[in-house]
Amino acid sequence: MASLLQTTSRTWAEVEQMLASGDVQGKLAKEDLPTPALCVDLDALNGNIQRMATYARDHGRALRPHGKSHKCSQIAHLTLQAGAAGACSAKLGEAEAFAAAGIDSILVTTPMVGRHRIERAVRLASRISDLILVLDHAQNADDLNAAAAAAGVQLHVALDLNVTNRTGVAPGADAIALAEHVARLPHLTLKGIQAYAGHASHVIGFAERAASSLEAMAPAIATRRALEAKGIPCPWLSGASTGTYNIDGEMDGLTELQPGSYLFMDLDYDRIGGPTGDRFDDFANSLTVLSTVYSMPGREQAILDAGLKAFATDMPFPPVVKGIEGAVYSFAGDEHARLDVRRSSLPVALGDRLELVIPHCDPTVNLYDRIFATRGQQVEAVWRIDARGMST
Amino acid sequence: MASLLQTTSRTWAEVEQMLASGDVQGKLAKEDLPTPALCVDLDALNGNIQRMATYARDHGRALRPHGKSHKCSQIAHLTLQAGAAGACSAKLGEAEAFAAAGIDSILVTTPMVGRHRIERAVRLASRISDLILVLDHAQNADDLNAAAAAAGVQLHVALDLNVTNRTGVAPGADAIALAEHVARLPHLTLKGIQAYAGHASHVIGFAERAASSLEAMAPAIATRRALEAKGIPCPWLSGASTGTYNIDGEMDGLTELQPGSYLFMDLDYDRIGGPTGDRFDDFANSLTVLSTVYSMPGREQAILDAGLKAFATDMPFPPVVKGIEGAVYSFAGDEHARLDVRRSSLPVALGDRLELVIPHCDPTVNLYDRIFATRGQQVEAVWRIDARGMST
Repeated sequence: MASLLQTTSRTWAEVEQMLASGDVQGKLAKEDLPTPALCVDLDALNGNIQRMATYARDHGRALRPHGKSHKCSQIAHLTLQAGAAGACSAKLGEAEAFAAAGIDSILVTTPMVGRHRIERAVRLASRISDLILVLDHAQNADDLNAAAAAAGVQLHVALDLNVTNRTGVAPGADAIALAEHVARLPHLTLKGIQAYAGHASHVIGFAERAASSLEAMAPAIATRRALEAKGIPCPWLSGASTGTYNIDGEMDGLTELQPGSYLFMDLDYDRIGGPTGDRFDDFANSLTVLSTVYSMPGREQAILDAGLKAFATDMPFPPVVKGIEGAVYSFAGDEHARLDVRRSSLPVALGDRLELVIPHCDPTVNLYDRIFATRGQQVEAVWRIDARGMST
Repeated sequence: MASLLQTTSRTWAEVEQMLASGDVQGKLAKEDLPTPALCVDLDALNGNIQRMATYARDHGRALRPHGKSHKCSQIAHLTLQAGAAGACSAKLGEAEAFAAAGIDSILVTTPMVGRHRIERAVRLASRISDLILVLDHAQNADDLNAAAAAAGVQLHVALDLNVTNRTGVAPGADAIALAEHVARLPHLTLKGIQAYAGHASHVIGFAERAASSLEAMAPAIATRRALEAKGIPCPWLSGASTGTYNIDGEMDGLTELQPGSYLFMDLDYDRIGGPTGDRFDDFANSLTVLSTVYSMPGREQAILDAGLKAFATDMPFPPVVKGIEGAVYSFAGDEHARLDVRRSSLPVALGDRLELVIPHCDPTVNLYDRIFATRGQQVEAVWRIDARGMST
C-alpha cells in the first residue's frame, strides 16, 4: 500500500521555523503548507493590480482599493506602489491596522457613531496625514466637530450618500442641507461625497449592470453639481466597485474608484458577465484555499479538511476544485466537506491536496490569519492578514 | 437634537487600556465595548456547564466537551473544573492551543493524514499526558506507528467509525479488520471507538431524533461488542452531541459524551425540540453579538454594524434581536445589516446598542478574537479565543 505521506522533503519542524521567521523565499513549497491554507497567486494578483491601475490612470480617476477585501497591509502597499491614491477601510479597526503599517491616506467607508468610535477616529486623524470619515447625519457631524475641537484637529469628512438602500443621507435636498450644515462646522473640512452602489456591482449582464449603476449614481453626480452650484466645494466623488469599475469609471463627475474584490476575484464575480460574454474575466482568480483529502469512505466521495470554517457560505454555490472537472464540493459541517468524485476528470485519492476557488472572497479572507503568496508551486512570502477580525 | 453618544463614563483610552491588560472586573460595562462584540452571559454559561456535567455524572458517562464550539481554553478549563474528563478538538491546531494552555487530555476528532500532521501529532503526544488520535485507514495506522516508533512514543488511538456519512471506517467487518491491524502495531494503543452521528443531532422532534441517533449508533455499539468478543479490548466509546446527549447518554455501551454547542446554544439548536415541546430548552442561550445602530435612513429601518463578517451564515435564518419582538434582521453586506423596525415592539434609534442571538454558534465564534464574559450589564472577564482560526 502506498504511504499517505506528503512528498515534501521538509520536516514540519523546519516549516514551522520558516513560518515563524517569515524567511520562506526559495525554500518553502505549497506542498509544505498546513491545510486548509489561504493562497494568493502572485502573478495573477500583480496582473489584477496593474490592470486596474492602468484603467484608472487612462481614465483620469484616482484609485483607492478597498481594504475590506484583503485586510492585509502588505497588499495595500502593493496597490500604493502601483499608483493608488490611498486605501479604503470599511471599519475604523481596519484603518487603525493599516495606519500602524504605514499607510497614511485612508477613507473609512462607514459612519463613526458612538462616543468611543469618535474618540478613536479623532486620535487616528492626528496620527496620519489624510484620514477621511463619512457621515450621514447632522448630529453626528456636530459630535465629530466637538470632538475635533476638543482635540485641536481638523477632520476631513465626506457625505455618505445613500445610493444602495443602506447607510447614507438621501441624495438631493437632504444631502445639500447636511453639506450646508457641515460647511458651517469649523473643525470639519468637507472633502466631497462617497456614493457606493453595492447592489449594482452584482447585477448579472453588463448592460443590465450599467443601467443599474447609472440609475444609482446619477443622483450622486447631480448632488455634487448642485453643491458646487451653491458654492460648496465638492472636488471629490468616490464610488464604484469591481463589478462597475468600467461603468462608473466612464461617468463624468466621479473622481475616484474604490473597488476591492478585483485583487482576488471569486465565483460570484466570475458570473456577472462582461461586455462580450457570460464570464466577467477582466481580472484573474488569484485566491484559493488549499485543502487535503483526509478520509476516503469508498470510491464515490472524498472528505476534505476545509468546511464551514474555511469559507464564507453566504453565496448559494459552493467552492470549485481548480484543475479538475466534475468533482462536486458540498459542505459537510464546520471542518469537513464532501467531494463527489464519481464524475471527476482526474482520480482523487486519500492524502491528495486540492485547490479550491472561493465563492465570496471578502468574508473568506476574514477567516484566515495569514495568506501565502505563491508563484507556481513555490511560496514566496507569508503575509499577515493584519486587519482580520478588525470589525469595530 | 439629542447627542448620539454612548452614555458610558469611560473614555476609549481607558477602555483600551483595560482590554489590553485584561483587568476589567468591576470596571468595564457592556456599554463600553466596541461593536460588534461577542458576549457570553456567565450565569447562562455556568448553568449549561453544570447541567450537562450533572447529567453525565448521573448517567455514569464521562464528559469531554467539544472545543470546536468554544475554541477558548478558559472555557475548556471551566468544564474541567466541573468534572469533564478532558477536551475534544476538531483539528490538531486547536489541540496545540489547548495543550499550550495546560489541558492535557485531548481527543482530536478528525484523522491525521499527511507527513507533517503526523509529525505534529507525535510531538504533541510527547507533550501532554493523554492525546487520543482517531484513524479510519490501515495505511494511516502504519504511518502513525512508524512515526511513533521513530520518536519513541506510544500513541493512543481510536477507530473513527463512519456513522454519519463523513470520515470513518465502516462499522462491522471493516472496523474489526482495522482494529485487528492496529492491535498488531506495537506503538499504537487502541483505546476504543469514536462514533459521532452529527446528522442525528439536528433532526427536529425528539422522537425522530432519538430514532435517527439509535439507528446511527447501534452499529457502533455492536462493533464495540464484536471487538470485545474477539478479545480486542475496547473500553471506550465516545459520541453524542448537544442534540443527542440525552438520547445517546441512555444507550448501553456508550461511555463518553462529546457535546459542544450546549455551552452557548443557538437558534438552530433552539428549534430541534425537546421531549415535551417544540423548543429545545435544556440549555440557555448564553451567546450574543452586541451591535450598534450606525445609520437610520428613515423610520422603517435601522442599519447595524454587524453583517456577514460578524455571523456565520450557513443557516437559512438570520440572527434575532434579544428583548425586542418584531424587529427583523437581514444581512446587508459584509459589514452591514438591515433591521426592519416597522413592527418593532420597542423604538430603535441611531446609536442604540442591540444584542443579537446567533444562528450557528461554532463558526460564529471562529470569527472573533475574544469573548466578553458578562453578568448583567457588567463585563467580568475578557477571554482570548486562543484556538480561533486553528483549522489545520
